[in-house]
Amino acid sequence: MHRQLFEHIKKFTDLDKEDTLVLSSLLKSFSVKKKQFLLEEGQVCRANYFVVKGCLRLYFIDIKGAEHTTQFAIENWWISDLTSFLFQKPSEFYIQASEATEITAIEHHHYEEIFRKIPKLERYFRLVLQKAHQASQMRIRYLYSMTGEERYHHFNNLFPNFVQRVPQYMLASYLGFTPEFLSKIRAKKV
Amino acid sequence: MHRQLFEHIKKFTDLDKEDTLVLSSLLKSFSVKKKQFLLEEGQVCRANYFVVKGCLRLYFIDIKGAEHTTQFAIENWWISDLTSFLFQKPSEFYIQASEATEITAIEHHHYEEIFRKIPKLERYFRLVLQKAHQASQMRIRYLYSMTGEERYHHFNNLFPNFVQRVPQYMLASYLGFTPEFLSKIRAKKV
Repeated sequence: MHRQLFEHIKKFTDLDKEDTLVLSSLLKSFSVKKKQFLLEEGQVCRANYFVVKGCLRLYFIDIKGAEHTTQFAIENWWISDLTSFLFQKPSEFYIQASEATEITAIEHHHYEEIFRKIPKLERYFRLVLQKAHQASQMRIRYLYSMTGEERYHHFNNLFPNFVQRVPQYMLASYLGFTPEFLSKIRAKKV
Repeated sequence: MHRQLFEHIKKFTDLDKEDTLVLSSLLKSFSVKKKQFLLEEGQVCRANYFVVKGCLRLYFIDIKGAEHTTQFAIENWWISDLTSFLFQKPSEFYIQASEATEITAIEHHHYEEIFRKIPKLERYFRLVLQKAHQASQMRIRYLYSMTGEERYHHFNNLFPNFVQRVPQYMLASYLGFTPEFLSKIRAKKV
C-alpha cells in the first residue's frame, strides 16, 4: 500500500519500520478518472496529492473565462492549492486529472500530525517544496524571457514524453499561449 | 550576532545551545546600501538571504528590456534565485536592495551542512519554503483574476506600510502594470 510514495521518500530520508506504519495509517490511496476534479473553485482543498501514476493539473479561470494551467504533476510530484489547503479556505483554483490517475493523498487533518509523529518527513517535504518553488520561479522567468516558440521547444527538449501526453490546449495554457499558436508551431516541425 | 534570525527560527522550532553555536559559525551578517546588487544576471547566486531590516527584491529583465519584480523580501523573509543557488549555475535574475538593508546569509557551501548538523532546521525551512510557494501560487492567481486597479487595492489593504516603502516603478512591475498606470490609480485616491 502506498508503495511508490515510500520509494520516493526513501530517496531523500530514511524511515524506520515504525515511521512507515504510522505514515501508512495516515495516507489514503485512490484512483480518479480522466477529467475528474479533486478541487473546484469555491471548494476547500482537502488534501495534498502525490501522483503515483497519471497526471494532475492545477489551473484557474481568469476574468475573461480563459483557463490558465499553472502546474502539472506527473509521477512522483505533489500538487495542491497551498493557500486553500493550509488555511482551509475556499479555493480559487481547480485540480483536475488530465489522465486516469492513481493518487496517494495526505488529508489536511493529518498534515501537521505527520510532522509531529515523523519529524524525518520535514526533510522530505523541505526538499519537495524547494523543488516546487524553484520550478515556479523558473516558469515565471521563461514566460517573459522567451518567445512562445522558444518556450515550446525548450519545454519539448526538457520533457519530450510529457509534451506527447497532455492535451494541446492544456499545454498551450501552461506555456502561456493559445492552442491555435501551438498548432502552428507543431505544424512547422512536422 | 544574527539575533533576529534566531528569534525567527524560534517561532517554528527549538534550537538548543549547541545548535545555536554551530549555526552561528555558518552564517554571515552584513549590510548593503540602497540599490546595491547581491546578484546580477550571469552571476552565480552565492547565498540564501534573510532580511533583518530593509528590503530586497528579485527581478529579471525581459526580452523587451522591461523589469519584472517577482518577489520582495522585507524583515523576516528569505530571498534567493533557487535555481542558481542550488545548482550553482549562472542566474537569469537580479537581487537588489531597494533600501539600505541588513542581511543574514547562508552561503551555498554551508547550505547542506546546516541541515546535516542541525536537522531541526529542516522544519524551519520546510515552513519558510511552504509559505514562499504558497505566496507565489497566489501572486500568479491575482495577476490574472483581478484588474490592475483591484490588484493595487488588494495589495494595499494587505500591506499598507509596504506600499509606502517601495519605489513606484518596482511596485508597478510586481503588480504587473506600468508606473504610469500606478500613478493614475493613486491620483484617483488622493
